[in-house]
Amino acid sequence: MLKMKKYISEFIGTFSMIFCGTGAMTVNEVTGGEVTHVGIAITWGLIVMAMIYAFGETSGAHFNPAVTIAFAFAKKFSWKEVPSYIIAQLLGAFAASMVLWYLFPGSETLGATIPTVDVGRAFVLELLLTFFLMVVIINVSTGSKEIGIIAGIAVGAVVLLEAMFAGPITNASMNPVRSIAPNVLSGNTAGLWLYIVAPILGAILAVVSCKLIKHDNCCDEVAC
Amino acid sequence: MLKMKKYISEFIGTFSMIFCGTGAMTVNEVTGGEVTHVGIAITWGLIVMAMIYAFGETSGAHFNPAVTIAFAFAKKFSWKEVPSYIIAQLLGAFAASMVLWYLFPGSETLGATIPTVDVGRAFVLELLLTFFLMVVIINVSTGSKEIGIIAGIAVGAVVLLEAMFAGPITNASMNPVRSIAPNVLSGNTAGLWLYIVAPILGAILAVVSCKLIKHDNCCDEVAC
Amino acid sequence: MLKMKKYISEFIGTFSMIFCGTGAMTVNEVTGGEVTHVGIAITWGLIVMAMIYAFGETSGAHFNPAVTIAFAFAKKFSWKEVPSYIIAQLLGAFAASMVLWYLFPGSETLGATIPTVDVGRAFVLELLLTFFLMVVIINVSTGSKEIGIIAGIAVGAVVLLEAMFAGPITNASMNPVRSIAPNVLSGNTAGLWLYIVAPILGAILAVVSCKLIKHDNCCDEVAC
Amino acid sequence: MLKMKKYISEFIGTFSMIFCGTGAMTVNEVTGGEVTHVGIAITWGLIVMAMIYAFGETSGAHFNPAVTIAFAFAKKFSWKEVPSYIIAQLLGAFAASMVLWYLFPGSETLGATIPTVDVGRAFVLELLLTFFLMVVIINVSTGSKEIGIIAGIAVGAVVLLEAMFAGPITNASMNPVRSIAPNVLSGNTAGLWLYIVAPILGAILAVVSCKLIKHDNCCDEVAC
Repeated sequence: MLKMKKYISEFIGTFSMIFCGTGAMTVNEVTGGEVTHVGIAITWGLIVMAMIYAFGETSGAHFNPAVTIAFAFAKKFSWKEVPSYIIAQLLGAFAASMVLWYLFPGSETLGATIPTVDVGRAFVLELLLTFFLMVVIINVSTGSKEIGIIAGIAVGAVVLLEAMFAGPITNASMNPVRSIAPNVLSGNTAGLWLYIVAPILGAILAVVSCKLIKHDNCCDEVAC
Repeated sequence: MLKMKKYISEFIGTFSMIFCGTGAMTVNEVTGGEVTHVGIAITWGLIVMAMIYAFGETSGAHFNPAVTIAFAFAKKFSWKEVPSYIIAQLLGAFAASMVLWYLFPGSETLGATIPTVDVGRAFVLELLLTFFLMVVIINVSTGSKEIGIIAGIAVGAVVLLEAMFAGPITNASMNPVRSIAPNVLSGNTAGLWLYIVAPILGAILAVVSCKLIKHDNCCDEVAC
Repeated sequence: MLKMKKYISEFIGTFSMIFCGTGAMTVNEVTGGEVTHVGIAITWGLIVMAMIYAFGETSGAHFNPAVTIAFAFAKKFSWKEVPSYIIAQLLGAFAASMVLWYLFPGSETLGATIPTVDVGRAFVLELLLTFFLMVVIINVSTGSKEIGIIAGIAVGAVVLLEAMFAGPITNASMNPVRSIAPNVLSGNTAGLWLYIVAPILGAILAVVSCKLIKHDNCCDEVAC
Repeated sequence: MLKMKKYISEFIGTFSMIFCGTGAMTVNEVTGGEVTHVGIAITWGLIVMAMIYAFGETSGAHFNPAVTIAFAFAKKFSWKEVPSYIIAQLLGAFAASMVLWYLFPGSETLGATIPTVDVGRAFVLELLLTFFLMVVIINVSTGSKEIGIIAGIAVGAVVLLEAMFAGPITNASMNPVRSIAPNVLSGNTAGLWLYIVAPILGAILAVVSCKLIKHDNCCDEVAC
């Protein structure tokens, strides 16, 4: 039952995050720019922060397969739990995109991630964005749960600022399910693979860099 | 006397919140957009945060009948206190709208909530917005009082981001008294019912979802 | 010597606050709007927050005669210290305005507060703005020093949101020295009296309201 | 090995900060203003905050030669470590500017700092900006490491607000390596000296002012 509570937390948290974040992009699209680019970035950062405070103690508040895989790679999260977490995250993301589709049938993107530069540059940028995100996550989290007062503020801030400055280039996904759900439902699947591969590589790179700096926070004593 | 202090806290807190939040919309209206949509959303989020820090220890800082009813439904707040709290919140909201009416006689809305989509979609959106709000409130609060360092930041952030992305669609009320006062005084009462029913349902739904995840924070041990 | 440290703290804190806040308005004026209204409000809120964290433990981080007088009225600050604090605040504010005058000789306002509504409405609005500010200050402060983790965030947020929504009406002064220095140096002294009287009345009103709600935080046990 | 961990922390932290901050300016340049001035300032402030939380415990999270030198001047950091820290910061800054150059070959500035006023005024402004920054850093830090809950929020806020209001005048550098890397790589080296000298002087001035106010936080007991 404890496990089920974690999956429900990941489902609700990912649903809320994708609904509000891609919802901001969708509302901006259908209203001709009323939310503004700054407003979209603020929405992304604050919903991530709020959901970390709501579910950090229950599930660790991953909401992101790249984060889940990186924590497993760091031996701070069980590999056996990875598939269940990713399924809960995928279900949450698709549920969010489908409700947005019902609410805003006129939207052509549903907040899909569509790069405005070539694939190579988009790949490098998404890899770096997720690297920065995971560097902060792994340095402010203790154990595999990002609890504590600062975790939500620091992680939400990274999402906000990356959506702010990199949004016009790659839409700053940093999260495979955040791209899969709106891109598939809106039919924008070209280039989707990079939003799956680059974030996972970037998050793992952050774990590697963390091991160079602080042993204790990056992996379990037994394993490293 | 302790009760009276709670009611005064709810009155002043709701007055401040409605005055600043709908005041931002009113000033934006009468100045032709100087506050900006982003500025309105920031005003809403920060006044909620500040009032939670000011009155969280005294009254629990509800300022919202949907929150009060949901806490009572969760058995974290006495049903007997619900009518008094709602009356204090209503008085605070009407006082705020009346002062704004005096200050800005040229305003046609006083910050009323007016949906730009059909009633069904507006209902679903308001229900979801209040669901997200109450999910965060109930997960960060301990007992029925949202004290603690994080509560104000997390709850204020949800209000800010929801006003940001959903403002152009339903004005992101999430709060019956926040809609009743300006809508009645400015004569925008069509559709007002949805801003009363949807938030209450959304907040109760959050309590139900909370019970699936964490027993302790969602209701009293005795009652659940 | 301990007193001198307090006065220097009030001087540097007020200087920093007025330099950055009215500097944002001045830069916006001379660049034709590059800072934007939203940027000005954010500047005001964050410099107040930062200076509270820098000097809260030393001087209590008033930076505002209305706050100093209200704390004395609440018997949380010595009346004998009030003149020295106000002199330090005045010197800091004038020093800031004079440096801005040197840096931006083309500015016609130096960030002066100039109402866009009639005097009666401006008076009511400034009184309410300072009331909200002092309600938050007195409820989050312990003793006469706004220390603690939350104080800076809550008080900075109130300044930010009030500058955001009320800026287009009265420039949201809430602080006599914040108006006196730029208004005198730029020759905008008509209506200056209201920015001196209304904030002091509003802050005292907040202390009175506080005594209705929470005895302990609003005044010393001996005195009340 | 402990030292190497500090240098790697300074390298990654400075790389992240310069990549995101000057990246925001670069993306804004190549997209014709999509990030907006407000978005650039928010990016700067939040990446500084996030990196302080990520690396504050490891290296003290300086990321800035002016801060490193000022801490050494305050006898809170060893002069022997100063050259290594500055080299790590320079390498991080150049690495960030070079990746941005690869990603955005069409950029003419790479986020370089270019004043819009005469050298004298730009010098005074940069000196004051770094003075405010260091006043906050030294008052919220304990020892030479800016740990603690508040440090990141307060220091990030100062960077954000200074980028907001002074960005249109001097680009609000406050940091020699933040100017050296993009200015050299983009060929904007005229006036670069002022972005090296003024921040260092401003930061040292803050240490001097701090010694007037609070002995304990400004320098070691033995040395002062």
